[in-house]
Amino acid sequence: MNISRSLNRGHAERPIGIFDSGVGGLTVFKALRARLPGEHLLYLGDTARLPYGTKSAESVTRYALQAASHLAERGVKMLVIACNTASAIAMPALVREFAPLPVIGVVEAGAEAAVRTSKSGHIAVLATESTVRGGAYARAIAARRPDARVFSQACSLFVALAEEGWTRGPLVEAVAREYLHPLLEEKKRDGLDCLVLGCTHFPLLQETIAHVAGSGVILVDSGETVALVVEELLVEQKLIRSRDAKGDAHFLATDGAERFARVGSLFLGERLAAQDVELADL
Amino acid sequence: MNISRSLNRGHAERPIGIFDSGVGGLTVFKALRARLPGEHLLYLGDTARLPYGTKSAESVTRYALQAASHLAERGVKMLVIACNTASAIAMPALVREFAPLPVIGVVEAGAEAAVRTSKSGHIAVLATESTVRGGAYARAIAARRPDARVFSQACSLFVALAEEGWTRGPLVEAVAREYLHPLLEEKKRDGLDCLVLGCTHFPLLQETIAHVAGSGVILVDSGETVALVVEELLVEQKLIRSRDAKGDAHFLATDGAERFARVGSLFLGERLAAQDVELADL
Repeated sequence: MNISRSLNRGHAERPIGIFDSGVGGLTVFKALRARLPGEHLLYLGDTARLPYGTKSAESVTRYALQAASHLAERGVKMLVIACNTASAIAMPALVREFAPLPVIGVVEAGAEAAVRTSKSGHIAVLATESTVRGGAYARAIAARRPDARVFSQACSLFVALAEEGWTRGPLVEAVAREYLHPLLEEKKRDGLDCLVLGCTHFPLLQETIAHVAGSGVILVDSGETVALVVEELLVEQKLIRSRDAKGDAHFLATDGAERFARVGSLFLGERLAAQDVELADL
Repeated sequence: MNISRSLNRGHAERPIGIFDSGVGGLTVFKALRARLPGEHLLYLGDTARLPYGTKSAESVTRYALQAASHLAERGVKMLVIACNTASAIAMPALVREFAPLPVIGVVEAGAEAAVRTSKSGHIAVLATESTVRGGAYARAIAARRPDARVFSQACSLFVALAEEGWTRGPLVEAVAREYLHPLLEEKKRDGLDCLVLGCTHFPLLQETIAHVAGSGVILVDSGETVALVVEELLVEQKLIRSRDAKGDAHFLATDGAERFARVGSLFLGERLAAQDVELADL
């Protein structure tokens, strides 16, 4: 792979590469599409090896590098790491390996938005088990606001609920109450006022989570935040494509095109067919 | 790999190889340990690539063959496919590849037990998405009782609940009611009387599932059924080890020894430490 050659090839016309372990990153895709309708988007979901959220740091880093290589070889102008787990663990390796290609991760973007949003500096992060364990959000927030207090909560069941399409109703509320219970105590006691949805699956449950969290807590959806950061960077590097043109979308998955299309439709909020999904071998 | 050499090497002293995509198969391990305390057991969880339940048939078959090769190379006297998904999809390939090594799958064992248990011939199977989609239980039951009526229900959330350690209480009951609702209609209308727990995670929720299913429905746990089939085969082939000796247990995982030990302890019903789990590369 020759990154500098890829970088010189297509300029603004080249696609933005978006990488996730599965379909969850389509919430980031959707936010990018809404903010930057003129951009070509190339999405890669590593469905053969999902979920990353319960895997070791070594495996996640190896998988992320392979996926990023694949996108770089297809000539993307920027890499968006939509997977929170990969973003929390593999960013240093990705930046090192693919420089000067810009690499943007959801964790950094989410931390930035949380610090801007929170008045009290008391922030909660809902994420997968390994994102919480790795502590990347806590570090990224502390780097921006050293006096911030970060409360992290793993919410594994939210992933399964989102993929099942169960996003509201009493059952989903009961699960959210179970996970958010300690956070609500913090809110009462200590003025917790910002909640980061630290997994790309969670925006599907946003309404329920917001309801359970109650007033006074602002939710940060890292998808929207990433789209903002991507836009700023494209403008700065003069890599932005005309907004008048309509950007193409292309979807790659490493396994199960049919399931990718079916569950992906829930995340995308529009119909995706199995024949729209190309199988890729990493 | 030279299977015939492995087969000749250790006779009854050799371990039984148990394979699953993760920790779920430990419910089968537990049932084997209870019924056959004298046997050496070698368990392999392919945690690097779980879950199999949402992957394509080609991938599941490839993974199962790799895992079985690894166990065969370690000289097992029998292969137990504790993973319902692999058992539903990869059995023909496994039997073909590893003959004359006996291969026992949870699906065949579960189907056998269901047909023996059900009076009405109206049987429900709860399983993962891909096990249900593949239709292996329905076929295995129909092969034994052509007039049987099989009602299959994918229960993806049960897996997440079991791994979270949430196995009883109102929330778990609410999830079970959601999934079992159509089955309960069948029970009322049509005398459904047997429910197969077609995923190794589900025995952890057995109490709740039984409660929601109500009286008149017998639950079949394929772990116990597999243990019975394994015992019969060991006796028949004169491969059984003395019951007076205590069998060893050895655990292999392809990723995340710490998580394997932690979540595995829930399935095993006893404490497993990370240093008891050897990492294996397939």
